[in-house]
Amino acid sequence: MVDKVIGIDIGGTNLRGALVSREGGILKRMEISSQADQGIDKVIENLAGFIKDISEGENVCNIGMGIPGIINSKDGVITQAPNILNVDDYPLRAVLNEKLGSDINIVIENDANSAAVGEWWMGASKDVNSMIMITMGTGVGGGLILDGKLWTGADGMAGEIGHITIYPDGAKCKCGNYGCLESYASATAIRRMVREGLEDKSLNTILRESTKNIEVEDIPQIVMEAAGAGDGFSLGIWEEVGKALGIGIASLINLLNIEMVVIGGGVSNAWDLFIDKTYEEARRRAFRAPMKRTKIQRGLLRDDAGILGSAHLALKSSNEKKP
Amino acid sequence: MVDKVIGIDIGGTNLRGALVSREGGILKRMEISSQADQGIDKVIENLAGFIKDISEGENVCNIGMGIPGIINSKDGVITQAPNILNVDDYPLRAVLNEKLGSDINIVIENDANSAAVGEWWMGASKDVNSMIMITMGTGVGGGLILDGKLWTGADGMAGEIGHITIYPDGAKCKCGNYGCLESYASATAIRRMVREGLEDKSLNTILRESTKNIEVEDIPQIVMEAAGAGDGFSLGIWEEVGKALGIGIASLINLLNIEMVVIGGGVSNAWDLFIDKTYEEARRRAFRAPMKRTKIQRGLLRDDAGILGSAHLALKSSNEKKP
Repeated sequence: MVDKVIGIDIGGTNLRGALVSREGGILKRMEISSQADQGIDKVIENLAGFIKDISEGENVCNIGMGIPGIINSKDGVITQAPNILNVDDYPLRAVLNEKLGSDINIVIENDANSAAVGEWWMGASKDVNSMIMITMGTGVGGGLILDGKLWTGADGMAGEIGHITIYPDGAKCKCGNYGCLESYASATAIRRMVREGLEDKSLNTILRESTKNIEVEDIPQIVMEAAGAGDGFSLGIWEEVGKALGIGIASLINLLNIEMVVIGGGVSNAWDLFIDKTYEEARRRAFRAPMKRTKIQRGLLRDDAGILGSAHLALKSSNEKKP
Repeated sequence: MVDKVIGIDIGGTNLRGALVSREGGILKRMEISSQADQGIDKVIENLAGFIKDISEGENVCNIGMGIPGIINSKDGVITQAPNILNVDDYPLRAVLNEKLGSDINIVIENDANSAAVGEWWMGASKDVNSMIMITMGTGVGGGLILDGKLWTGADGMAGEIGHITIYPDGAKCKCGNYGCLESYASATAIRRMVREGLEDKSLNTILRESTKNIEVEDIPQIVMEAAGAGDGFSLGIWEEVGKALGIGIASLINLLNIEMVVIGGGVSNAWDLFIDKTYEEARRRAFRAPMKRTKIQRGLLRDDAGILGSAHLALKSSNEKKP
């Protein structure tokens, strides 16, 4: 029986991973720069070294990885990952099997799907049979656990909660659609709202100074602090975020009648600033009974959700291969 | 092995049902008035007689029923069915078991869920593993087949596709929400659009005469005929219907990556008048790959979808009980 696996979260900046026991314990944890800006070959070189380092002294044959992009998990191919690896139809599993040995069982999955599995396995929704994970980061990702299993859809592309339409004539999303949840509840969305607000020269807000020359990932923190300091414009931005999230969650509840909605990602650090509006909006819109039974709560695992989820998928896949 | 079951579609006007073989063949078909206006006791009396008539000369122990409302299928209880039976928490299975004998295995399900199962078992989506059924009638219902199984959610309330929000500030829906799909793609929605349009006294449309004193169920047919005759206002209504449907389907495709969307119900008879707009809108909004692979097509079984779906659920439940 497999007793240890590796779970890895592949990001644009860092590779983060851990050696994980079959009970979900983190035995060893590592993090290195992914150097994604130097191209895919460099990332693969780093990834292979990273895996060797984590598994040093251990006999680990099962590795799971979460990747931000469109993933064909069946074939182990990255269909598209524009923000991280800038590759199309890249056969990650085959490449890694060549480098690490063909006996290594490699499972790849979309990172938000991995995070959903992680929160369901070891985190906020351990005891439920169905849940939706929403990760609010640079974009908005998602994952669906239905009947105790990750629902990845006909081609592994399901769970794109960030790209359900909230406002049909709303802000343009980088996916090409208008008014996606991602266009209202991500760091990118918050940057847009700040920029549009500041165009009104008469608007009085501390963000006018504090958001100068700031990276998109850091904007939510600044708007959170400004709202905490009573900045009205910033408070309004969080209301917008909460409202869009509530509209989306109501649709998800009516459609899927899940037991729980778990919200993670860096933007969700502003929880207290948006969650009341989210509840208010969702209650206004969802059917009473399924709304009442659905718990909406923060992820518990933070950055470990993806690592643990990937580890669980690797464990599960090893069981399926060796029954 | 069970070789024959009964499938019944309970409607506000009629009870429709059939004796169905395990291969999905309709062996005998019946229809009577439900007399729902005379109260639940009368409906139950009619239903019990109806079942006896269909099963005459046969030894049928498994019956499935589709009911328009919120159904707790596990307990066999109608939670709410305001449009048909006007009952709350009505223990239909227990009542029928008392009347028909406790050895009769009775399965109850929401009617749109039954229709989804029917189209998946014997109709438009026979060969797929995942599909969404959308029924456009007086309201808009829905059912989800995921991984070859009906997804009914944590409390049997999933599949309310008619109540995902399309336009957050749109028309009020009878569920209490604003801008639901049902408020734009049902017979009720079409009646509203006609009424609102006619308020403009200068509007030139043949609907001004032809929709006088017409029941809501008959409105779509009249607007369809008017559009067919080139009435511009009527053509515009079908564009609105098609657009709302396209926005909703795009969200469903991004979220669930299903293989097929099947559209049924009386309003879908106007298919040629709205489907181009639906495709146009969905293509604008959904991710390219899952959009391309998703077939959007009309239901094949029409009124038999619910009967066959209920029959299938009864068959399946009999297998689970006697393995």
